[in-house]
Amino acid sequence: MTKGRLEAFTDGVIAILITIMVLELRPPEGSELSDLRPLVPTLLAYLLSFVFLAIYWNNHHHLFRVVDHVDGAVLWANMALLFWLSLTPFATAWMGEHHTDPAPVAIYGVVLLGAAVAYFVLARVLLRLHEPSSQLAIALGKDWKGKLSALAYAVAIALAVVSTWLALAIYVAVAIVWLIPDRRISRVMAGG
Amino acid sequence: MTKGRLEAFTDGVIAILITIMVLELRPPEGSELSDLRPLVPTLLAYLLSFVFLAIYWNNHHHLFRVVDHVDGAVLWANMALLFWLSLTPFATAWMGEHHTDPAPVAIYGVVLLGAAVAYFVLARVLLRLHEPSSQLAIALGKDWKGKLSALAYAVAIALAVVSTWLALAIYVAVAIVWLIPDRRISRVMAGG
Amino acid sequence: MTKGRLEAFTDGVIAILITIMVLELRPPEGSELSDLRPLVPTLLAYLLSFVFLAIYWNNHHHLFRVVDHVDGAVLWANMALLFWLSLTPFATAWMGEHHTDPAPVAIYGVVLLGAAVAYFVLARVLLRLHEPSSQLAIALGKDWKGKLSALAYAVAIALAVVSTWLALAIYVAVAIVWLIPDRRISRVMAGG
Amino acid sequence: MTKGRLEAFTDGVIAILITIMVLELRPPEGSELSDLRPLVPTLLAYLLSFVFLAIYWNNHHHLFRVVDHVDGAVLWANMALLFWLSLTPFATAWMGEHHTDPAPVAIYGVVLLGAAVAYFVLARVLLRLHEPSSQLAIALGKDWKGKLSALAYAVAIALAVVSTWLALAIYVAVAIVWLIPDRRISRVMAGG
Repeated sequence: MTKGRLEAFTDGVIAILITIMVLELRPPEGSELSDLRPLVPTLLAYLLSFVFLAIYWNNHHHLFRVVDHVDGAVLWANMALLFWLSLTPFATAWMGEHHTDPAPVAIYGVVLLGAAVAYFVLARVLLRLHEPSSQLAIALGKDWKGKLSALAYAVAIALAVVSTWLALAIYVAVAIVWLIPDRRISRVMAGG
Repeated sequence: MTKGRLEAFTDGVIAILITIMVLELRPPEGSELSDLRPLVPTLLAYLLSFVFLAIYWNNHHHLFRVVDHVDGAVLWANMALLFWLSLTPFATAWMGEHHTDPAPVAIYGVVLLGAAVAYFVLARVLLRLHEPSSQLAIALGKDWKGKLSALAYAVAIALAVVSTWLALAIYVAVAIVWLIPDRRISRVMAGG
Repeated sequence: MTKGRLEAFTDGVIAILITIMVLELRPPEGSELSDLRPLVPTLLAYLLSFVFLAIYWNNHHHLFRVVDHVDGAVLWANMALLFWLSLTPFATAWMGEHHTDPAPVAIYGVVLLGAAVAYFVLARVLLRLHEPSSQLAIALGKDWKGKLSALAYAVAIALAVVSTWLALAIYVAVAIVWLIPDRRISRVMAGG
Repeated sequence: MTKGRLEAFTDGVIAILITIMVLELRPPEGSELSDLRPLVPTLLAYLLSFVFLAIYWNNHHHLFRVVDHVDGAVLWANMALLFWLSLTPFATAWMGEHHTDPAPVAIYGVVLLGAAVAYFVLARVLLRLHEPSSQLAIALGKDWKGKLSALAYAVAIALAVVSTWLALAIYVAVAIVWLIPDRRISRVMAGG
């Protein structure tokens, strides 16, 4: 019950965030195809954030499939994750307009890093409630992928001062790593 | 379980998209009935997009009624569909303001075509997981309606350069074809 | 199943509509309490629309409690209702800024009337699928309240030309009539 | 059934409110890190409101876990709570821009107080439907925390005229009190 309402609330917030970003895509004044060209960076920033939010939804979905019970600390750890994710539209809009300036690109990375850390904390808080032999503990394992992603974001934030393209390349690379399906999880889901 | 949360997330995103478009309907400065006249094309563009999103919701709904299981690829194929649908408010707003210019009318068609192709891919990815004798395989059949719709959108995009009215007529015609209830599906649902 | 997803989608759309209207409540430039005064008509218009949408949600909720099955026509009748309701934020914003001008007040009534007619059609389409002895048929009865509300809206639209205050008084009166709990329904729900 | 749809609708509205506030966080014109500095009060106001809405969601969640049945009066008491919560983005935006002026800070408190009173009324209306020995009656108890919070808001509203910082400190203090987990509830949830 509790778990169900937590999942539903999270789904609601992520669904809203993923669609609210479209509001940043303002139609151009003119009506020529070439009037769309200045929007291309904004559209690509939107696509990148769409993929990130979709990855979080997918991971959250997988995570809670193996969760048995939750407590108040889990609710608040989940809220912290949602707070960081809720900053995505803001960071996306700023970076979409200034993708060659260090500050907006670095701040985008800070939001990604914040969300990654919040997700890590959420997983730890959940592990505290479950046996080491539980499905959850096995599924999470050492979570190298999550830890390396956070590290990659930290590196990208520092690199944004040197080259925004390098930082953006790291953001895209992390997204691609998460897009490649995890064979173990696919196996579990086929049986779901 | 997995299927349920996928459906709920999709419902959430489509519900938000269908209502977010209303924000484009800005009340006019003046307070005369005649002040509404310039809004008529925007209102009609909104109505058309409302019907398209409603058709996708209906079809998604019917499709997942006969789905037995999903995997990671299905989640991502579904996300791709949602991404294309999420561009609808943008395309609607641009076309609503410039319905006699080729570019906005053609771009609207590109979004419709992208969504149609994404839906087609989603159906194929689902078929891969189901037996040829499954309810899903039978319900999808040869999917002539879906294939012809995609073809019609492609034709309309090309025609937008010649006549935006012709392109708009095709968009409306495709919507009407989908609005006419499919007798087989109605039969299935009456038993639901 | 089908009914469940229809209810969830409707809940989603109404929840979004009821909150999207808040975006019209722009904080004033100044920071004095008196700066809020020009917002009072907008706030009252928002409150009125909030109550109307809440009434529709309540009625939809009660209606579908006694629905046994749905078909494609029900889905589309429900979509038509949602379309009319989705025009509420627009009509509310226009009336909130011009509550002493006939056109915005009359258009607000047109949206209310459209929603009332769509709800009536939805109920008829549902009745077609149910026995005259079904819970649904008994609960709907002759639906005097619904028919009289639609009539009242029509009268208010006509009266808006003479006096916007008279029209507004009718809108408020209809809302109050629906707010008074229906003893029969309360009885049914206590057992739910 | 009824309870389920009421919870889902409430979840939807709160999820939308909590994310809609992000729209107030407009990216700055410039692209320097220092361009973010004027946004800090807005961001902090957003964080405070995020926590308040999260607390209401948590409390609503806990409250309805022990609710057995609802009636029409509960639906309307719940709607009144949602109405007050829906004013949060407006009050947050105004206070975010003018956090050193009495009126916006006091109005923010009025919205918090309105929500607290509406929540109190909702709890009373629910108690009316349940036995004094019910789980609900035991869980609510004397509700000192709720009553003191309302009192604290009233004091803060009055103090806003003297010092906005004092009022803000009270808002933050109340939020922290609610963030500290309630041991009894945690125990109940661990078994859920």
